[in-house]
Amino acid sequence: MKKLGFIGLGNMGKGMALNLVKAGYPLTIHDVRPEPVQELVKAGAKAAGSPREVAENSEIVITMVTSSPHVEQIMFGDDGVLAGMKKGNIIIDMSTIDPIVTRKVAAAAADKGIDMMDAPVSGAPPKAADGTLSIMVGGKKELFDQCKSILDVMGEKVIHVGEVGMGEVVKLANNLAAAIAGVGMFEGFLFGVKLGADPKVLYEVMSASSGNSWVLQTRVPYPNVIPGSPANDDFAPGFTTDLMAKDLGLILSAAEATNIPLLAGSLTRQLLEAARAAGYGSKDWSVIARIIQQLAGEDEK
Amino acid sequence: MKKLGFIGLGNMGKGMALNLVKAGYPLTIHDVRPEPVQELVKAGAKAAGSPREVAENSEIVITMVTSSPHVEQIMFGDDGVLAGMKKGNIIIDMSTIDPIVTRKVAAAAADKGIDMMDAPVSGAPPKAADGTLSIMVGGKKELFDQCKSILDVMGEKVIHVGEVGMGEVVKLANNLAAAIAGVGMFEGFLFGVKLGADPKVLYEVMSASSGNSWVLQTRVPYPNVIPGSPANDDFAPGFTTDLMAKDLGLILSAAEATNIPLLAGSLTRQLLEAARAAGYGSKDWSVIARIIQQLAGEDEK
Repeated sequence: MKKLGFIGLGNMGKGMALNLVKAGYPLTIHDVRPEPVQELVKAGAKAAGSPREVAENSEIVITMVTSSPHVEQIMFGDDGVLAGMKKGNIIIDMSTIDPIVTRKVAAAAADKGIDMMDAPVSGAPPKAADGTLSIMVGGKKELFDQCKSILDVMGEKVIHVGEVGMGEVVKLANNLAAAIAGVGMFEGFLFGVKLGADPKVLYEVMSASSGNSWVLQTRVPYPNVIPGSPANDDFAPGFTTDLMAKDLGLILSAAEATNIPLLAGSLTRQLLEAARAAGYGSKDWSVIARIIQQLAGEDEK
Repeated sequence: MKKLGFIGLGNMGKGMALNLVKAGYPLTIHDVRPEPVQELVKAGAKAAGSPREVAENSEIVITMVTSSPHVEQIMFGDDGVLAGMKKGNIIIDMSTIDPIVTRKVAAAAADKGIDMMDAPVSGAPPKAADGTLSIMVGGKKELFDQCKSILDVMGEKVIHVGEVGMGEVVKLANNLAAAIAGVGMFEGFLFGVKLGADPKVLYEVMSASSGNSWVLQTRVPYPNVIPGSPANDDFAPGFTTDLMAKDLGLILSAAEATNIPLLAGSLTRQLLEAARAAGYGSKDWSVIARIIQQLAGEDEK
C-alpha cells in the first residue's frame, strides 16, 4: 500500500484521515492543532512537524484545509509540501478553493514533475466520518484510476470530472445552482405564505410541479412542513451560512478573474452576508429565508 | 348535467372547451375571434354574443383569458358575466392573473350571491387538448367537491389549494421558484463551462447533488446534453418567454401591492425582459440562459 500523507485534520479532515488509517494505509499527518494529531497518532498515524516533513515521508499527499490562502501556505515556501516532494509523487487537494489557485499550484507542482488532482467533497462531517462523501475529481484519467481505491475509502460517490481544477469548478457550479434555487424557493414560499397559502400545500404543489428541487426536498423554510429541514430546529446545520458564503465568494472570485458576470450569484452572496451580519453564520444557509422574510416585515419566528 | 358556459377560446381554452362538449356538457361559448367559435359550434356548443349572454344561459361559467384586465372586462359592465348571472350560480376563472384581481372579482360576485373559484392551470396547449392539465383550485371546499367532475374533464391533476385566490397564489409561487431556480442553473452552467467543464459532466454531477431540480431535468441550456431540452432546438417552446414574463409581472404586481420585496424575482423579471428585447419572446423561457451567456461575452450559438 502506498505511503500517504494527510494535512488538515479539521471537522472533515480528521474523519477522512481516520478512515485511511483504519483501511491500513501507512499515514503521516500534520496539523497545527494538537488534539486531532494526538487522536490520529493513537489510531496509528505518524505525526510530522511540517507539511514538508509530511511530503518527505509520503508518495501521495492529501490536503484538506479551509481556504485558498491555506492551500498556498501549505504548498509553497521552505516548509511547504512542494519543497519536500519527490518527482513522480502525487498531491490530491480535497479542499474547496478557488479553481484558479488550484491551477497555480498544479502548474508549480508540474514544474517539479509532481502530479496533482483536485478532489473537493460534498457532505457534512458525519459523511466524512462514515466514508460516504461525494468526491469530484479533476486530474489526468490515469492518475484518477491509480488513486481511485484511496478515494473510495473516503467517499461513496467518486466521480472523475475532467482535468485538474475541474473538481473545484464542477463542485462550485453545483453549489451556485443550489444556492440560487434556494433563494427562489424561499421567495416562492414567502410570496405564497404572505398571500395566504398554507406552506404544506405550497410544498405539495411545488413537489409535483416545475418548482421541485433538491433544496425544496431538504430545506423548506417553514417549520414542520417536511421532516429533516433545518427550519424545524431553528436552522441548525446542515451546511452552514459561513461555508456557503465562502463557496459563493470563491465562485465570484473565479468569475471576476475570468469576466463572468453572475447577477443572481452576486445577489445570493449578499443575502448570505446579511445572514452573517444578523449573527446566523453558524446556522444552516437556508436561514437566508429568514432574512428574506424580515425584509418583507415578517417577525422572527 | 349542469349547463356550462365558456369564455375565452384561445390556444388553451379551445381545447378545454372542446373536451367539455365531448364529455356531453351543454355548453354556451363566447369569444371575439370567429374561428374557434365556429369550431366549437360545429362540435355541438352554442354561441353567445356576449359574456352576459353566456352567463344568462349557464349555471357554471368558466373563463380562460390572458390577463387581469381581460378578466375584469368580461366580468364587469353591462355586457359582463356578473350582469347575467343568477344567484347561486358559479364562476370558475381558469386564467392566470393577479390574485388581487381574483379577490376583487370574487368579492363583487359574492355581493350578488354568486360563488367563485380560481383554477389556473399548468401545462401547454397539447395538455389542454388532451385534458391532462394540472389545475390548482382556490375556493370553498364544498364548491370544489361540487365542480370536481367538471374540472376532471380538463385536468389530470386537480388539487384544492385553499380559499378563492389561492389557486393563483400557489401557481405563481411555484413559477417564481422555478424561474429563479432556472437562473441559478443557467449561471451554474455558464460558470462551469467558461472555466472548462463539460456540460454533460455538469449535468451528471448536478443531477446527483444539491443542484438537482425540475428545471435541470428539463432545461439544460446547452444543446444535446439531455433529450427534450428546448436548447436542443434553438429554444423552441415549451413555455414561452412572454408567458413567463407575464407570470413574473403578476407576481411582482401582487408582491408590490402587499409590500413583499422579491430581490431574485425582480432580477429574473429583468432577464426575461432582456430576452424579449433580443426578440426571444416566443422562444422557451430558458433562452434567458443565452442572455446570461451573452453578458459573459459568449457568441450566439
